[in-house]
Amino acid sequence: MTVNTGSMHETWMRLALEQAERAGREGEVPIGAVIVKDGAALAVGRNRRETDHNALAHAEAEAIRAACAALGSWRLSGCTLYVTLEPCPMCAGAIINARVDTVVFGAYDPKAGASGSVIDLFSCPFNHHPAVMGGVLEEDCRRLLQDFFAGLRRPKNDGC
Amino acid sequence: MTVNTGSMHETWMRLALEQAERAGREGEVPIGAVIVKDGAALAVGRNRRETDHNALAHAEAEAIRAACAALGSWRLSGCTLYVTLEPCPMCAGAIINARVDTVVFGAYDPKAGASGSVIDLFSCPFNHHPAVMGGVLEEDCRRLLQDFFAGLRRPKNDGC
Repeated sequence: MTVNTGSMHETWMRLALEQAERAGREGEVPIGAVIVKDGAALAVGRNRRETDHNALAHAEAEAIRAACAALGSWRLSGCTLYVTLEPCPMCAGAIINARVDTVVFGAYDPKAGASGSVIDLFSCPFNHHPAVMGGVLEEDCRRLLQDFFAGLRRPKNDGC
Repeated sequence: MTVNTGSMHETWMRLALEQAERAGREGEVPIGAVIVKDGAALAVGRNRRETDHNALAHAEAEAIRAACAALGSWRLSGCTLYVTLEPCPMCAGAIINARVDTVVFGAYDPKAGASGSVIDLFSCPFNHHPAVMGGVLEEDCRRLLQDFFAGLRRPKNDGC
């Protein structure tokens, strides 16, 4: 039997996109994440920085926190993290600290990406090196962000 | 009037050391942090990774979370973060994300330090660059960690 891992990655990334869309509806930059273990979703997270007034509340960090709570452990060995945007340094560091096996992300982030765009933390000599795949459903993930920021820039029309 | 900033930094670092000692008594790697704003302690944090089963629960991240909650904002502009050990990539990234003005740390971390020891995230082209000072009460901070790990390696003597 051939497992179509591309399709599997897209399936989970669509779930991360649903989380991102939810964040966008809440007025947050639309970024979402899912953590998968043994073929099932273990935890989800979405950007809640403005809502929670918390600099730590990025989608990946929220998902990691929830996954640790679900497993009762700070070690997320055997887990794959899906996120719609390339992780920032904080989230890449959290992925290393939590020993996440694999990271799959959608859009690249030329301004803050820590998986190759600005810096590649995953190839630095730290004590854990996750496998990484970027560009899964890249266009969908990027368009969601572009539409969000275009909406912020658009002048409001009150009908006056 | 001359302000002795060295003494001021040591005073706050001693408060961070108290947090670190508390973490050690709880069986955690003894690392502590304090966030100071307008000359007063705004928040403290200590390593709670094992207790909370949470990969995110480093001392700096705990202090940043508490400081954001205290201010009702994810922006910690005007704040100085004191921590007994050089920040890891996750915590250095959190410091950047929270726009912390200044970081003062005690011991250097040759294995995971992200303020020059393994990598210098603060000098990378991200959108915030805190001022950084390392080595404040370095010997006290390092000895606390060394004693903790020496205790772990020491064979237990039950009196048998």
